[in-house]
Amino acid sequence: MSLVQIIPLGGAGEIGKNCTVVRQGDEMIVVDCGISFPHEEHFGVDIVIPDFTFLIENKDLIQGVFITHAHEDHVGALSFLLPELEVPVYATTFGAAMIKSKLDERMRGANPDIHIVEPGDTVEVGALSVEYVRVTHSIPETCALAIRTEHGIVLFTADFKFDFTPVDGLTSDIARLTELGKEGVLALISDSTNIDRPGWGPSESEVSNGLRKAFTEAPGRVLMTMFSSNVHRMQQALDVAHETGRKLAVAGRRMESTLQLAAREGYVDIPEGTFIRLDDIQSYGDNKLVILSTGSQGEPMAALSQMSRQEYGRMQIKKGDTVLYSARPIPGNEGAIWRTVNRLFLLGANVITESEVPIHVSGHGYQEEVKMMVNITNPYYVVPVHGEPRHQMIYREMVKKMGWPEHRVFTIQNGQTLMIDSNKAEYGPEVEWGELLIDQHGDVAVTSPVLGERTALGHDGVIVVSVGVDLKRGEVKTRPEITTRGFSGPSEVIDEGMEAVCDALAAMKQGARTDAFIIRDVIESAIKKTVQRTCRQRPVVIGVVVPEKG
Amino acid sequence: MSLVQIIPLGGAGEIGKNCTVVRQGDEMIVVDCGISFPHEEHFGVDIVIPDFTFLIENKDLIQGVFITHAHEDHVGALSFLLPELEVPVYATTFGAAMIKSKLDERMRGANPDIHIVEPGDTVEVGALSVEYVRVTHSIPETCALAIRTEHGIVLFTADFKFDFTPVDGLTSDIARLTELGKEGVLALISDSTNIDRPGWGPSESEVSNGLRKAFTEAPGRVLMTMFSSNVHRMQQALDVAHETGRKLAVAGRRMESTLQLAAREGYVDIPEGTFIRLDDIQSYGDNKLVILSTGSQGEPMAALSQMSRQEYGRMQIKKGDTVLYSARPIPGNEGAIWRTVNRLFLLGANVITESEVPIHVSGHGYQEEVKMMVNITNPYYVVPVHGEPRHQMIYREMVKKMGWPEHRVFTIQNGQTLMIDSNKAEYGPEVEWGELLIDQHGDVAVTSPVLGERTALGHDGVIVVSVGVDLKRGEVKTRPEITTRGFSGPSEVIDEGMEAVCDALAAMKQGARTDAFIIRDVIESAIKKTVQRTCRQRPVVIGVVVPEKG
Repeated sequence: MSLVQIIPLGGAGEIGKNCTVVRQGDEMIVVDCGISFPHEEHFGVDIVIPDFTFLIENKDLIQGVFITHAHEDHVGALSFLLPELEVPVYATTFGAAMIKSKLDERMRGANPDIHIVEPGDTVEVGALSVEYVRVTHSIPETCALAIRTEHGIVLFTADFKFDFTPVDGLTSDIARLTELGKEGVLALISDSTNIDRPGWGPSESEVSNGLRKAFTEAPGRVLMTMFSSNVHRMQQALDVAHETGRKLAVAGRRMESTLQLAAREGYVDIPEGTFIRLDDIQSYGDNKLVILSTGSQGEPMAALSQMSRQEYGRMQIKKGDTVLYSARPIPGNEGAIWRTVNRLFLLGANVITESEVPIHVSGHGYQEEVKMMVNITNPYYVVPVHGEPRHQMIYREMVKKMGWPEHRVFTIQNGQTLMIDSNKAEYGPEVEWGELLIDQHGDVAVTSPVLGERTALGHDGVIVVSVGVDLKRGEVKTRPEITTRGFSGPSEVIDEGMEAVCDALAAMKQGARTDAFIIRDVIESAIKKTVQRTCRQRPVVIGVVVPEKG
Repeated sequence: MSLVQIIPLGGAGEIGKNCTVVRQGDEMIVVDCGISFPHEEHFGVDIVIPDFTFLIENKDLIQGVFITHAHEDHVGALSFLLPELEVPVYATTFGAAMIKSKLDERMRGANPDIHIVEPGDTVEVGALSVEYVRVTHSIPETCALAIRTEHGIVLFTADFKFDFTPVDGLTSDIARLTELGKEGVLALISDSTNIDRPGWGPSESEVSNGLRKAFTEAPGRVLMTMFSSNVHRMQQALDVAHETGRKLAVAGRRMESTLQLAAREGYVDIPEGTFIRLDDIQSYGDNKLVILSTGSQGEPMAALSQMSRQEYGRMQIKKGDTVLYSARPIPGNEGAIWRTVNRLFLLGANVITESEVPIHVSGHGYQEEVKMMVNITNPYYVVPVHGEPRHQMIYREMVKKMGWPEHRVFTIQNGQTLMIDSNKAEYGPEVEWGELLIDQHGDVAVTSPVLGERTALGHDGVIVVSVGVDLKRGEVKTRPEITTRGFSGPSEVIDEGMEAVCDALAAMKQGARTDAFIIRDVIESAIKKTVQRTCRQRPVVIGVVVPEKG
């Protein structure tokens, strides 16, 4: 019998860009294909995707990409993978619709091979089979994946919570998960996002109570910001708006397109007469309005952020507005979010970020929910992913208390290969992996040397020093010139640098002055030394030597 | 009678760089002189200080700078102000010692005129007088300032909480605050940092219980990270280390110097035999050690951050270590802190950021404490500062519920002048104010155009295009050259740019080619257009024209 290998290329030891390979013999399947977001040191980077080299090198072995749900951190990188890899993609009806709408934006006319799988269905691919099992999460039709191998089931929990009162009434299929546990789960690849929260998380439908209170108490317009993919949240906003006699409009392109898609496909049910166009809000009293808006993470170009800067063309914030943050900050976004909140307050809005009755709940299960998943699926090996190392370590301690010995828990990191056979599991050789930093302006990857240069440029600016030299005779023909951008040193530094360059050129042997590369090094080094000595900064220095005729 | 004017140059509508002027007639005093920290868009900026133009223009009117306590956001900018302004500085014994130690670092030999004021003392300056009234906070000898004017007392609360069991046993002087209230407080200039936290905050001395639990349960070494100025916290760490049979060492220059200063001046009491040098930790068992470390905010060069990257020379993290975060993230630092925490976990440490028994409490009072301050001082006007607009707005709603009508509450912002006489209070003309972004490498201010250039450089890099031209004859003498740094566009873009530059030069009239400035504009614009068309990026483009002889 072949080994079963589990190889995360993203999403292990981090929250974001989920992408994991399951291999048995000569067959591979890929689970999810997501993006993550850059952190503050990633200058000029818009999104981060997994390095797909390993997949491309093994393209002939890959049977398909199986999508658990349509969040960006699970599907967002498909538009980068599919041009490299012709392979079928499997997703539920809603997932497929979301993927198509995103691919339409990015791939302009490409026609990926998407297969629809309903929750409960099983897809056979070669010697493997993949069963879709419904779980609850903050987007419709999220499914755990039960992958049958020769050694037992590899069960990806996907992002999940156990919500007994979900907005669409469709609960996690606990019965099926329990049956799989009895059949024999070899390894549980488990969400660990909220493993540091004790207890059992609140149901998504609790949010209705928070919205009802807020919509009722707000004296004027309600603006509500949230993730645009949270269709259940939209449904609750629509229902509570209807119930409290308010109309609902939408600000922000992505929010608009998701609501359209969800309504068209039957995933939200718009109460009659509740939805209005944003351009029509003037026709209604302020206390008859709810406006759903993008921008919950302080993204500079999102609708709410633009409103806070008074730059949004279609509506303005005014005194009496109430803004509800129906989302949590992704760590790292707090600064941008609070700056937006403060601007909204200064414009006269009342901003509610937290409330006794929740206006937001998480889509990921808390500790007791994760314990329940482990208990009913009863896996031989436990592999916490979808968490940073701190989450994985807490998960490990937790399942140790549940009776799993340490050698059956793998806090796997990206690029590691977990090899499992009937007798044991162990880490194999690391595969090629990494992260590509994507600049969406150019749809290009930002390499790490380029990132290093940007960091230096961003911190201390650039100094360009140029000189014309007769390279045949080794004679300097022009006075050096210096240009700076983003450099904050005093102008004396430039004067001193100029002198240093002249001195250095004069000190060169005439023979050396016939080599443009040597001259460039000499003038760059003269500037660098002067700057570091006089003001301790480290700008990027670029020397330009222009050849002159004698 | 003269107007009383209150003019915040920093610290109103923000948390940080506190600096407020109180003016009566031709006399001004300054309360505090602090720095704040840059946010993530402030490329290459280390600290932010208030623009002191208004003070410098009025230097003859200023009687003194009165320091409430020695936190950086209240004293950190003195080293920038004092060289411009010869003026006495008033502070308590501990405050003066901290200020001197910081000025020694930064002003190398300057000898500022610092006057010591004990809590309870009153300083007369011209027609004004300033009384120091003790309050509790996370640094010794914090004082509220009661400034007597012709119209009543202007009372700065300073940063405060009402801690009835402070570590040094010295509680807030509630009796005196109450007397001042009876005497007549014209305006309360109040801390609002924790106004969004309901109830009454826990006492600093509660932390001992959390530390006791953690020190007792930790199987090996304890590393504890905190703000280095929190002398009371240090005292508790020392006491609990002693009690649990551990020795205490210190990692990080600032932590070391503060502990030294506090011990020398009698503000911490080191239990005999408890303190050891960091280089001596090898002589003790792991479970006999506590190491206090800088780096609670993820600062890249702090001791704990260096340890997490395995770059700290004096000790290494190892399996079995327990790291306690005895501090809260300042908003915006979360990303850097969690990255550090994850690295510590991967090195085998157990990291505790929160615990049932608190290992950190805030130095600022919660809502009921602020209400208590308002109640006992019974001010005519209430002026919430030391808070962002969101805190100020919550404060305003809170005191409205306490019976203060809206026209007696001023949510003042930096640069605004609050003018008060016997009949009324209103905003006067805005004074010159702003923030200076300081690059500590060079002790220079980063101007906003420079910051704009750094942002552009950091996002998309720089392209330098150079050409040699015979300016007398208007003849291009060399093939243009292109150099890039931090630019991620494909190399074809450069090839196309080169062609565009050649075409543009060829298309110029010979007459125009005699003007270096015009040529520079033409070649820069050719590159910019090409780059924007082909890859939609916006790098900084620098054209260099080197004059050639025919």
